[in-house]
Amino acid sequence: MKSIIIASTSTVHGSGYLDYLLDELKIHFKSADEILFIPYARPGGISHNVYTQTAAKAFSKIGKTVKGIHEFDNAIAAIENAQGIFVGGGNTFVLVSQLYKYKVLSPIKDAIQNGTPYLGTSAGSNICGLTMNTTNDMPIVYPPSFKTLGLVPFNINPHYLDPIEGSTHMGETRETRLKEFHAYNTQPVIGLREGSWIAVKGSELTLKGHLDARIFEYNKSPYEVAPQTDLDFLK
Amino acid sequence: MKSIIIASTSTVHGSGYLDYLLDELKIHFKSADEILFIPYARPGGISHNVYTQTAAKAFSKIGKTVKGIHEFDNAIAAIENAQGIFVGGGNTFVLVSQLYKYKVLSPIKDAIQNGTPYLGTSAGSNICGLTMNTTNDMPIVYPPSFKTLGLVPFNINPHYLDPIEGSTHMGETRETRLKEFHAYNTQPVIGLREGSWIAVKGSELTLKGHLDARIFEYNKSPYEVAPQTDLDFLK
Repeated sequence: MKSIIIASTSTVHGSGYLDYLLDELKIHFKSADEILFIPYARPGGISHNVYTQTAAKAFSKIGKTVKGIHEFDNAIAAIENAQGIFVGGGNTFVLVSQLYKYKVLSPIKDAIQNGTPYLGTSAGSNICGLTMNTTNDMPIVYPPSFKTLGLVPFNINPHYLDPIEGSTHMGETRETRLKEFHAYNTQPVIGLREGSWIAVKGSELTLKGHLDARIFEYNKSPYEVAPQTDLDFLK
Repeated sequence: MKSIIIASTSTVHGSGYLDYLLDELKIHFKSADEILFIPYARPGGISHNVYTQTAAKAFSKIGKTVKGIHEFDNAIAAIENAQGIFVGGGNTFVLVSQLYKYKVLSPIKDAIQNGTPYLGTSAGSNICGLTMNTTNDMPIVYPPSFKTLGLVPFNINPHYLDPIEGSTHMGETRETRLKEFHAYNTQPVIGLREGSWIAVKGSELTLKGHLDARIFEYNKSPYEVAPQTDLDFLK
């Protein structure tokens, strides 16, 4: 049974890396002693090793060890044998480029569909959607495609940000950008505010955390859904 | 002689479309009665016609007519015959996809190098750089390449935004994003604040407007340059 956490962010303001999710992760990864970490998104360009240490430090608080995918000779075998998989945030363009380069998208999808529990934060959540077209990241590298895992029948917009009242900046708001997305694409998008996540259990999809999420559907006005909302209706 | 205005934005807060630039545009386009407008970036997904009307309204204030490239049967001939070219803002991914689709990147570059005066705002400025890797836009479509006109030996980051003091949002600041760019690329980037532009006259490049610009060079700390700074030193 698919078991996935699609989180808006790794870190909420004022607390440590993954802290707000640790109680949830203890349950989510209860069958796993070791988590396979995929550090490809390299936030701020940090090394795979340094990034893996950050993840390891957080997971040590719930008694799990973490090993980076770059430490294995065979990345595909590492995924097939993983007890749990965590793809961290950073730059989605860098992440997706590396996933294609190492040909690991299909193996990750297969592992998840076979029941390996998965955690994604930010860029690692973007790739759970149909495409990465709704990332907020800067396109600092050119990936071979924007297609991603398609584990849910919509796109994710992590770090969803409401318009800043009284802003004099002329750049587009997040809402404007997502409406523009629907001038060229038809799949729904879930704007996940920081501190929210989507829990996927088999065919059940539920909004979790304390905040509403904002839903953007093709040819509809955007609207809010409350925590615990069943998201299966989105296709 | 190349004659280019690379503007951060079309509109500064509290004034109309292109208003802050009109005095400059009167001089820049003095040899042109009609401006060829390229509306491909379609801000908010608006139609080419509606967008062209916006540009036409602004240019009518300085006695110029505007014709959209979509009104011509032959886009390449329209570029070759243009007295002046204006590429407006919107979504850079959409703009660049269309420029490749209609095979007009080389014709635009040739026209500019042959002396046709050019104005770019926002997305239309991004494409003056070496690549579009430093756009702020959402990747709502997948262009065949991120390579752009390379009229200047660096990249542009329009709508440059300083970190918002006291923000609790965990998304990256613009500065963080541009530093990340340099984990994978070596060309300089100019962060152009709204109301700034770069004037290119032959081989001379000058920062214009009332605001400093922020320069990001590979392996250097970012720094500020004042209006009227000669930007030729950036390579």
